[in-house]
Amino acid sequence: MERVIVNDVAPRDGLQNEPAAVSSADRVRLVNALVHAGLPAVEVASFVSPTAVPNMAGADELVAGLDLDRARFSALVPNRKGYERARAAGMRGVAVVLAATETMNVRNINMSLGRAVQVCTEVLQQARHDGLATRAYVSTAFECPFEGVVADSEVERLAAAMFAAGAEEVVVADTIGAGNPKRAKELFGRLVAAFGPSPLAAHLHDTRALALANAWQALECGIRNFDASAGGLGGCPFAPGAAGNLATEDLVSLLQQAGFHTGVDLAALLSVVEHIGTLVGRPVGGRSLPWLQRRNGTQNRCGG
Amino acid sequence: MERVIVNDVAPRDGLQNEPAAVSSADRVRLVNALVHAGLPAVEVASFVSPTAVPNMAGADELVAGLDLDRARFSALVPNRKGYERARAAGMRGVAVVLAATETMNVRNINMSLGRAVQVCTEVLQQARHDGLATRAYVSTAFECPFEGVVADSEVERLAAAMFAAGAEEVVVADTIGAGNPKRAKELFGRLVAAFGPSPLAAHLHDTRALALANAWQALECGIRNFDASAGGLGGCPFAPGAAGNLATEDLVSLLQQAGFHTGVDLAALLSVVEHIGTLVGRPVGGRSLPWLQRRNGTQNRCGG
Repeated sequence: MERVIVNDVAPRDGLQNEPAAVSSADRVRLVNALVHAGLPAVEVASFVSPTAVPNMAGADELVAGLDLDRARFSALVPNRKGYERARAAGMRGVAVVLAATETMNVRNINMSLGRAVQVCTEVLQQARHDGLATRAYVSTAFECPFEGVVADSEVERLAAAMFAAGAEEVVVADTIGAGNPKRAKELFGRLVAAFGPSPLAAHLHDTRALALANAWQALECGIRNFDASAGGLGGCPFAPGAAGNLATEDLVSLLQQAGFHTGVDLAALLSVVEHIGTLVGRPVGGRSLPWLQRRNGTQNRCGG
Repeated sequence: MERVIVNDVAPRDGLQNEPAAVSSADRVRLVNALVHAGLPAVEVASFVSPTAVPNMAGADELVAGLDLDRARFSALVPNRKGYERARAAGMRGVAVVLAATETMNVRNINMSLGRAVQVCTEVLQQARHDGLATRAYVSTAFECPFEGVVADSEVERLAAAMFAAGAEEVVVADTIGAGNPKRAKELFGRLVAAFGPSPLAAHLHDTRALALANAWQALECGIRNFDASAGGLGGCPFAPGAAGNLATEDLVSLLQQAGFHTGVDLAALLSVVEHIGTLVGRPVGGRSLPWLQRRNGTQNRCGG
C-alpha cells in the first residue's frame, strides 16, 4: 500500500481562532494524543507575538513538553524573531507563510508581497543553515478574499521562489476553501509538472464542502503530503457556521477506503476528536463523523 | 458551457422514508417549486402499494395535479401493476428498480435477482411499447448492506440487461453511500466504456461524505445525468444521523463552480430547501448550505 503523510494542524491552525485559549499543557496533551493515534506529523505551535495571537502564547513551554523524537513536529514562524524563538525552544522543523496576493500579505502580516518573499527567504536560508526541516506555505493559493482568483502561474512563481530559498516542502493552501476539483486538478497538476509530487503538500479548507473532492484531485496528481485538522477545527472568524480545515478523520477515512496507508488508527483518532470537543466547549467533527462513529460502534445497515 | 441534467428525487426518494407523510397537495407544490427553481427533471412519485410505503400514497392524485409539459417527470414502478397505475395516471416516464445482489432484491422487494430482472424487463418492454420514457435503477451498485462489495462486472451485466430490455437510461445507484472516488472512477469508467456516457446516470448518497467527490469522478468519466435531492433529503432509516442523498444544492454548487450549465437558480433552490424544512418539521440542507446561504446574503470574507 502506498503511504500518505498526514500532518495534523489542529493544535495550531485549529486552535488559533478559537474564542478561548487552550493552555500549553492541554495542547501538549493534544499533540501527544494525535501522535498516539498514529499521526506522523503535527503542526504544534506558532511563534507569533502573543499580543497578536493570544491563543498561541506559550509556544516555548509547549515545545519543552514534547518528546521531539516521537513525530515530525513543525511550528509556524512569521519572521526572523519567531524563527529564533522556535530554534531556541528546540524545534527541528519550521514553516514560513506567504500569501499569494499583495493585499492578503498586507492585511495579514502588514508586509508587501515582495517584502514577505524576502522575509521568508531569509528565514528559510537560516533554517537550512541551522539544519532544521523547512516548509513554506503559499496561502490563499486558489482565491484571495480581497483580490479574487489567483493565477496558477503566480502560485508556481511563489513556490519556485520558496524552493530556491531552501524550502524542502511547499504547502499549497486553500486558506478560504474556495477551490473546486476542476481547479485543484489544474493547479496541482501544474505544480507537480514543475516540481514533482514529493516536495509538495496540500492544505485544504472545507468551506464549500469540497475539501475531500479537492484532496482526491491532489492525490490523483500525485500529491502524498496533506495537512488536516482533527475534528475539522479551524473555522474562519469572518464566516460564522463555516466549516474549517479538512478534518483529519475525513481525509484518513477517504485514504483508507481508497487503499492508502496512513498509519492512523481511526478509533483512536475519534477519541481525540471527542477530547477536542471538551477542550473547545462544543462538539466538533468532520463530515464523515456520524458514519465513522456508527461504524466504530454498531454495524452500518441500510436497505434504503 | 456544457450542460448537466439534474433530476431531483426529493419528492420520492427524499420523502419516502420520512417519519410523517406529506400530503399529495404539498408534494405537488414541492414539485412545482423545484421546476420553478430550474430543475429540468423531477422524480415525483412511486406507484407502490400504499400499505407497503404509506408516504407514497396518493400518487395518482399527485400526478393529476402536475402540468406534465413543464419538466421531465418520472415515477418509480416496482412491477406491472404499478406501471399500469402510473400510465393510467398520465405519467410519461417511468423507472424500474433492480438491486445488484440476490439478498438485497429478496429483502427489498421479495424477489430473486433473476425474477427482478424478468419483472423489470417486462415493464420496460411494455413502457417502450406504450411510448413512455424509461429509466432503470441498478441499486446498491457499489456495495450491498447484506452481501458487501458488488463486482463491477455484475453491475455491467445488469445494466446491459436493462438496456437490452428497453431502458433508455440506466441509473447507477450507490444506495447506501458506500462508494469512494477510486471505486467511482473504476465503475463509471467501465460502464462508460461499455455503453457510452449519454445513457448513464449517477444516483449517489452522502453517508460517508464522499458523494461530491464521487460525483466529480462520474463527471470526469463523462456522465452528465445525475440524481440529487433538494436539502439532501432521504436519510436511511437504519442509520440515524446519516446523511441522505447527495443534496441538489451541493451538486449544483459544484457544477456551477466547475463551469457546467444546469439551468438551476441556486437562490430559488435555497428557498425550496427552506420550504422542505417546514414540510418535514426540521431544518434540512446539504453540506454546502451554510456557505451558500452566506454567499446569498452577505459577502464571504475570511482572512484566516
